[in-house]
Amino acid sequence: MTPETADVLLGNEVSFLAGADAGNGCDIAISSRIRLARNLAEMPFPGSASDEMREKISDAVADVVDPRLFGGKVHLFEMASLSPVDRDVLMERRLASADFIRRTGGAKLLVRNDERISLMVNEEDHIRLQAIRPGFQLPALWEEISRIDDRLGRKLPFAFDEKLGYLTSCPTNVGTGMRASVMLHLPALTLSGRIGATVQGIQKLNLAVRGIYGEGSDNRGNFYQISNQHTLGESEEEILGRFSAVIDQLINFEREARAALLQKDRFGMLDFVGRSFGALRYAYKMPGGEALNHLSGVRVGVDMHLFENLDIRCVNELWIATQNGHLQKNAGRELSAAERDVERARICREKLRQGRN
Amino acid sequence: MTPETADVLLGNEVSFLAGADAGNGCDIAISSRIRLARNLAEMPFPGSASDEMREKISDAVADVVDPRLFGGKVHLFEMASLSPVDRDVLMERRLASADFIRRTGGAKLLVRNDERISLMVNEEDHIRLQAIRPGFQLPALWEEISRIDDRLGRKLPFAFDEKLGYLTSCPTNVGTGMRASVMLHLPALTLSGRIGATVQGIQKLNLAVRGIYGEGSDNRGNFYQISNQHTLGESEEEILGRFSAVIDQLINFEREARAALLQKDRFGMLDFVGRSFGALRYAYKMPGGEALNHLSGVRVGVDMHLFENLDIRCVNELWIATQNGHLQKNAGRELSAAERDVERARICREKLRQGRN
Repeated sequence: MTPETADVLLGNEVSFLAGADAGNGCDIAISSRIRLARNLAEMPFPGSASDEMREKISDAVADVVDPRLFGGKVHLFEMASLSPVDRDVLMERRLASADFIRRTGGAKLLVRNDERISLMVNEEDHIRLQAIRPGFQLPALWEEISRIDDRLGRKLPFAFDEKLGYLTSCPTNVGTGMRASVMLHLPALTLSGRIGATVQGIQKLNLAVRGIYGEGSDNRGNFYQISNQHTLGESEEEILGRFSAVIDQLINFEREARAALLQKDRFGMLDFVGRSFGALRYAYKMPGGEALNHLSGVRVGVDMHLFENLDIRCVNELWIATQNGHLQKNAGRELSAAERDVERARICREKLRQGRN
Repeated sequence: MTPETADVLLGNEVSFLAGADAGNGCDIAISSRIRLARNLAEMPFPGSASDEMREKISDAVADVVDPRLFGGKVHLFEMASLSPVDRDVLMERRLASADFIRRTGGAKLLVRNDERISLMVNEEDHIRLQAIRPGFQLPALWEEISRIDDRLGRKLPFAFDEKLGYLTSCPTNVGTGMRASVMLHLPALTLSGRIGATVQGIQKLNLAVRGIYGEGSDNRGNFYQISNQHTLGESEEEILGRFSAVIDQLINFEREARAALLQKDRFGMLDFVGRSFGALRYAYKMPGGEALNHLSGVRVGVDMHLFENLDIRCVNELWIATQNGHLQKNAGRELSAAERDVERARICREKLRQGRN
């Protein structure tokens, strides 16, 4: 396979937002994701391997990943040969981690054409296989990713211990090597001041709570990524079952908080949503963090049917298109921070003008 | 004349905003006003007169003010018999001072049907005759008000001293008894941080700078009322000539500041204007002070031709209609502060939806 640039993906609808099969709770659960950490037996982990060794590993993996294995056309990206903007685009489409896009020697990304299946080679582990979909649908994701994992395991010698399970670079992943995560949009819990207690409750259940871009990112836009921490001593199905029950409950909490806000202060809710729309629709300088917050306001307005005629796809498109990498990719050049704010505002104005009068 | 309520004026276009004869500099000079303080000879000033005496004075004045004297149909309002909302409406239309609407015994207001000529009886002085017009047009105002003042003086014995001039309740008005004021909209001087020095400069010229509702009010909406302080030792024409020269200069300063802002940071200016429009167009709770600030942003946008199709009349109407008295008059009942914010937001949304897509 010849390495490609991010251009090949730009025409796609974004995997974790688009799709009619969004599943249950898709207004609050934006997307679901499962990642599996796998390593090749008898090979040093990427962190301690030489560049040459990592190249060898990535070649071995890329060799076996074909359309049959992935279930669709495969794209190959080499981090070392991509522009910074292209790397940001891959991260913003949630195909590569913030850590991975900064790696060079042997860091390769394999992506199925629909972006719902992808594989990072030489991130923290040799292999990070990912399946992602819109809405809340972990069983379907698990079915698909484990089928691909099985095929992969028949072609590559995974490091596996009968007692411990899959061996990984970081001990927290040993066992199943599985991280399931669901991105939740929780504006009403935030507005009603209940988010702090909710996050604490989630953490007590040994689940991690992170921002939109994963570890270390903040909760701009009221987006929360919830993921499992336990990978040892239970089967994947058991872990996913318990995890799903918590997510179900969080979705219900948010739904109740939305109904309560509307009941208690309808004009306050309309004001929050309307002002978000007004700023996106008419501003000429829009910083990224502010855009996310306003998109959160508009999203909850669409979810709660407070707009007469605004399609959620318009919000989803802006969510992706207003990120730094996509902005610059779209402009065809690198932009200064000030230029990005102007361009971001332009895109918001135009998209929302088309989306609504 | 039978006393009326504020209802009779509500259909009118507001005198100091409407009109094709807005004159030179009308985008920056919102309105011009001249007030003359007059007192009846041999009568105590209102502050030291009995209720009975004040009634006698107001009857004497009301008796001589007829359509011929005022040059048009005359309305009579008695403060004591008006509702609080009606009194606010009269103040918001700049026909009565904040102090006057709280007075009772003998406080009467005479208003010409077009609202451009009015007369408070028993404010601080027996007579406060006012002429007001849109834009910057002091000579025309002076011509009209002095003609009416002459007619009034032929019918009523004014307290006049050959050496001092007209005698008034407050020594600062003795002499001409004339206060000229111009309401200026100075957002660019404010945005560019030059307003502080400008106000200091004006004050050094012995002019007073006040907010939109006169003495003691703040400068919300970037509106500044500039007025003369000197009433002694010069003719009215001399005072008005010097005063006009200062206003001319302020208008030029503001015009230059607007051009400089647009040149230096076009998107910043568009952002300021656009966000103001967006908030008014889509908010559901709009406090009065915030509305004034946003109306200032929208007004400067119209003045600088930054809107494709927004009529300044729309902004002018909102400026009046979003004030507390007019809001309540329009709703047909007294409203709580929270209700006013909701109603104010509704009116802004609807008016701007009609005014523009």
